[in-house]
Amino acid sequence: MAEKIPTTMTAIEITRPGGPLVLKPGKRGVPESKSGELLVQVRAAGVNRPDVLQRQGLYPPPAGSSDIPGLEIAGDIVAVGQGVTRFRVGERVTALVPGGGYAQYCTVHESNALPIPAGYGYIEAAAIPETYFTVWHNVFERGGLQKGETFLVHGGSSGIGTTAIQLANAFGAYVITTAGSEEKCEACIKLGADRAINYRNEDFVEAVKEATSGKGVNLTLDMVGGDYIERNYEAAAVDGRIVQIAFLNGAKANTDISKLMVKRLTHTGSTLRNRPVDFKAGIARELELKVWPLLVERRVAPVIDMVYPLHEAWRAHERMEDGQNIGKIVLDVS
Amino acid sequence: MAEKIPTTMTAIEITRPGGPLVLKPGKRGVPESKSGELLVQVRAAGVNRPDVLQRQGLYPPPAGSSDIPGLEIAGDIVAVGQGVTRFRVGERVTALVPGGGYAQYCTVHESNALPIPAGYGYIEAAAIPETYFTVWHNVFERGGLQKGETFLVHGGSSGIGTTAIQLANAFGAYVITTAGSEEKCEACIKLGADRAINYRNEDFVEAVKEATSGKGVNLTLDMVGGDYIERNYEAAAVDGRIVQIAFLNGAKANTDISKLMVKRLTHTGSTLRNRPVDFKAGIARELELKVWPLLVERRVAPVIDMVYPLHEAWRAHERMEDGQNIGKIVLDVS
Repeated sequence: MAEKIPTTMTAIEITRPGGPLVLKPGKRGVPESKSGELLVQVRAAGVNRPDVLQRQGLYPPPAGSSDIPGLEIAGDIVAVGQGVTRFRVGERVTALVPGGGYAQYCTVHESNALPIPAGYGYIEAAAIPETYFTVWHNVFERGGLQKGETFLVHGGSSGIGTTAIQLANAFGAYVITTAGSEEKCEACIKLGADRAINYRNEDFVEAVKEATSGKGVNLTLDMVGGDYIERNYEAAAVDGRIVQIAFLNGAKANTDISKLMVKRLTHTGSTLRNRPVDFKAGIARELELKVWPLLVERRVAPVIDMVYPLHEAWRAHERMEDGQNIGKIVLDVS
Repeated sequence: MAEKIPTTMTAIEITRPGGPLVLKPGKRGVPESKSGELLVQVRAAGVNRPDVLQRQGLYPPPAGSSDIPGLEIAGDIVAVGQGVTRFRVGERVTALVPGGGYAQYCTVHESNALPIPAGYGYIEAAAIPETYFTVWHNVFERGGLQKGETFLVHGGSSGIGTTAIQLANAFGAYVITTAGSEEKCEACIKLGADRAINYRNEDFVEAVKEATSGKGVNLTLDMVGGDYIERNYEAAAVDGRIVQIAFLNGAKANTDISKLMVKRLTHTGSTLRNRPVDFKAGIARELELKVWPLLVERRVAPVIDMVYPLHEAWRAHERMEDGQNIGKIVLDVS
């Protein structure tokens, strides 16, 4: 940590839009921490679905963000910009970043960084921000999940899914999830799901109705889209809410809106990456207050699927696209 | 009012599902006021779009409701059931009813009745409940319209439209509306719309963007559905809300849900008729407190298009289906 900061670094570049192999290590200048920013020597970086879309050329980084993929990091602060008040050089942080995570160094506004929870290493810490920020905002803030409510999350074994199951369970909801194999369903139950539906064998709408005595679920977190949109309406309770955070099966769907109206559903959604630093800072404060203690107690914890060295980022993407992962895929940058 | 209550009455029956001519006067027993209910001698009854759907066999009345069409009435109280506390025989009321309005007598729970505003006759009073309850709940309670926000209502010259324009204007919103002719657009402007879009000549999405400096609208009240659903998403501002109360152009639509997600829209909707008496009572209290004074001052007032005698209910439906009406169509039951 007392090392001199180099001027160049290794970063994973998207050499052109395409398959996993377009991800290649390249040399880049080490970024400078501007006012309010930390320069973090990255020790581990989380891999997320939007990184895959970005690699495929389908999800351009927001204006002003790095073109290097990577939305979450953990590491050591090696420099601080003007006006930084909370953190000091040498402290260990985990952070949500708008890009640039697949690299040896990355800058982040201090308000979007959090201390690594006690007892966590860099790998686990890097697996926290993206899914915890996303789930906290969409399930608890936007979706308003309350204790005693029923909650459905699709893709229960994904990074988002494993986080949503644990947090919803910890905050007292009855948790239903869908996953694509018996093994994944078992993993979801271990994480706290009350009911895991193998969507390859069971119709989730029927299974949800059965699990809720015919009432349907109060809140659904969906990243599937396509024909799931109408099926989410069908699986919802009267006055149910559905929060859309992605659409792996497509954004276009022929949906019967009368179901939304008759059941008085609320369908909303959001994206996190393009939100301003201040907005993310608000989520960070809430997480530190309400979720960091649970992480420290290990009542919730990121689920690590596989770890790959930085220069094998392509293998990490391959695994994510295969859909075999249970939990998070992380790059080791040490 | 001191007259004896007869045992039978004239009511408009839906003799079979079909066109306007299936509406025929018939003899029915006068209903009895049960506990908490008023028996109202109907002097005027409003005609609404759901009545047309019910006549066509597409909108069955809720369980326990009369099969006679008609969702709003004005008249004199001729009897009260046990436990009625607020009203007395002889008082003039206007009321939202779950059915049975096209008749000489109709019962209603006292909590769903309101005193006829000072200065209003039966015809005008009968034109208030359905659209005022609907607009109040969906625009202000569900839609959360705030002073200074931009508001779009489709079908500006309809009963719902004329009410929504006036109320949104009275509560300080910037009001945009769509209508199908220059004459209708002019009527909407006179009612307080800041911008009226003739959808036959102009694309409403473009016109809304122009009227909002490219920002889009904060809240949309839609009863059109079909391809308007995605166009409402396009016309919406970031964090915009869309409240769906009907789908005249169809409930099924191929909609791009990514627009909902990227702009963080909230799409919701409701139906009023099937809600419990207590829920409607809550709206009634709010209306009496916040809207009745505006009615008395004539800052808002129902817009009467045409009045037909009760036995010509079929003509009223014909006019509604022609779509030529500006404002409300009312049946005179005196």
